[in-house]
Amino acid sequence: MTESTESYTIDHRLSAADRNVHSVWDNSLDPVLTIESGDVVRFDCRDALDGQVGLDSTADDLANASFDPVHPLTGPVYVEGAEPGDVLEIELLDLQHKGWGFTGYMPGEMGLGLLPEDFEEAGYYAWDLEGDIGKFVNGIEVPLDPFPGTLGVAPAEDGAHDTLPPRNVGGNMDVKHMTKGSTVYLPIEVEGALFSTADCHAAQGDGEVCVTGIESPMFVTARLSIRKEMNIKQPQFKTNGPFTPSGQDEPMYATTGIAEDLMIATKKAVRHMIDHLEANHDLTRGEAYMLCSAIVDLKVSEVVDAPNWIVTAYLPESIFPEN
Amino acid sequence: MTESTESYTIDHRLSAADRNVHSVWDNSLDPVLTIESGDVVRFDCRDALDGQVGLDSTADDLANASFDPVHPLTGPVYVEGAEPGDVLEIELLDLQHKGWGFTGYMPGEMGLGLLPEDFEEAGYYAWDLEGDIGKFVNGIEVPLDPFPGTLGVAPAEDGAHDTLPPRNVGGNMDVKHMTKGSTVYLPIEVEGALFSTADCHAAQGDGEVCVTGIESPMFVTARLSIRKEMNIKQPQFKTNGPFTPSGQDEPMYATTGIAEDLMIATKKAVRHMIDHLEANHDLTRGEAYMLCSAIVDLKVSEVVDAPNWIVTAYLPESIFPEN
Repeated sequence: MTESTESYTIDHRLSAADRNVHSVWDNSLDPVLTIESGDVVRFDCRDALDGQVGLDSTADDLANASFDPVHPLTGPVYVEGAEPGDVLEIELLDLQHKGWGFTGYMPGEMGLGLLPEDFEEAGYYAWDLEGDIGKFVNGIEVPLDPFPGTLGVAPAEDGAHDTLPPRNVGGNMDVKHMTKGSTVYLPIEVEGALFSTADCHAAQGDGEVCVTGIESPMFVTARLSIRKEMNIKQPQFKTNGPFTPSGQDEPMYATTGIAEDLMIATKKAVRHMIDHLEANHDLTRGEAYMLCSAIVDLKVSEVVDAPNWIVTAYLPESIFPEN
Repeated sequence: MTESTESYTIDHRLSAADRNVHSVWDNSLDPVLTIESGDVVRFDCRDALDGQVGLDSTADDLANASFDPVHPLTGPVYVEGAEPGDVLEIELLDLQHKGWGFTGYMPGEMGLGLLPEDFEEAGYYAWDLEGDIGKFVNGIEVPLDPFPGTLGVAPAEDGAHDTLPPRNVGGNMDVKHMTKGSTVYLPIEVEGALFSTADCHAAQGDGEVCVTGIESPMFVTARLSIRKEMNIKQPQFKTNGPFTPSGQDEPMYATTGIAEDLMIATKKAVRHMIDHLEANHDLTRGEAYMLCSAIVDLKVSEVVDAPNWIVTAYLPESIFPEN
């Protein structure tokens, strides 16, 4: 693959060698690179499971994977002049996947994902990513919109912090709209910011319901700049989307989840979508769960009609071969 | 205004006269109209507050409004042959506002809306709806995408049920994508279905955070058909959007809310958006709250990175006069 270097110059490159990779957030970690505000860094990023599964793997391989290396993050990068209270601006200049990815779920004792109680065994699907499309079962084609699931700076609180949850300083946000062309703002809590990224997804639905998008090793090229005048409490960003797979209005099938609790409403919306995919598109419930995680978007339709709230799941019909 | 009658014939018209309006869900109510499956009905629908406020009203008028007539629903319509277990298909053929609408919030003892604790007094804004645009303060223009907030059939459970919460049978869903051209499916629980609609909105963001969209009296034209072969537990629908104000990708500013509870995450995302609108777009917090309710969309970004979930609020930048 060739590098895209449109209107910027890459000032630094960080490989995914062991010396540049860490798997906890910890403000005592030594930076592996020091840059000036405004520099462009190209990060080589491992996949979320650090190479433990691949194109030929099975659900058993996934079920037996170790979570010790999760997530392998590339960094941390020290930004000269960054101080607590500043904001780190991350312009996402380029995202380049490496031709493959995986989606899977690990229910049972792990309890991961939105619906661990609905599945007794693990599921796994490996995606051969040709160009801008991910090919799923039954001729289903998922358009790719790569983004880094994890973009974060070190928390002020001392010690080693798990990389799974996002925090005020960002981290594992899994926000699908932090795509190429987007600009992300993170509150800085420590001197130098100590920025790291990885856990890239070639595609993902809002919600990431089975706990994986299309997990892919990737190159992330970003300009990092300090914004002294901004003041934010949690991450913010600017994006041009895409807000639908095609970037314009297209037919969607939608299932509501109505309940007194937003989490229960979310589970209902996704279960109803899995019902729909099983009944109308010849998918197993496991395949449907993974497809939801890769392409179905969750919206909070209303949170004010007490006591019942609605979360709605949106399925783009353009992914099916008959459309 | 002229009627749109593209590729259908209106079989029945229901006025908004008192005899055709009810304000509770109750399966013992006498139908005001009996139709055959496939008939098209044009419903004249009052606004949610039943005319208690208008273009010249104030926040005090809203605070003093009675909730007794809420929501005035047009119906119920008995569909011949509809039986419990069937699905009612509602093709939304036309939605026609009447040139005005209002947005407001009523905090304090009422406790309505997502953030009643943030506002001590009521707020009110009346929209003069010229064509396809609603004009807000500071030159902000909100595109109109009219939809009925309430589409429902009578619940099986006997007695009078409040119209505020949505239920398995639909009702006050406030799902902004149930626009013209959409088809909504509701589970039928009683013989004849007993369908009613109203509470129309000329525009609304996902979430309807201040408890009102742009509340507008409206005509709703719909074809009602029985689907014997479908089997759903809660409402579902097909829609072509719009998924952005312009119907295609456009710049959005987004604020995340990160918390261990989805409702708290939702509140944080909206508070951060109100902060952003106050700091960068010269709006009072009350104006910002109403603008969020009219145009800002809420997405569930992730519900799997335990223990912290993310809800994100998306603001289209095209609504501002400088864009």
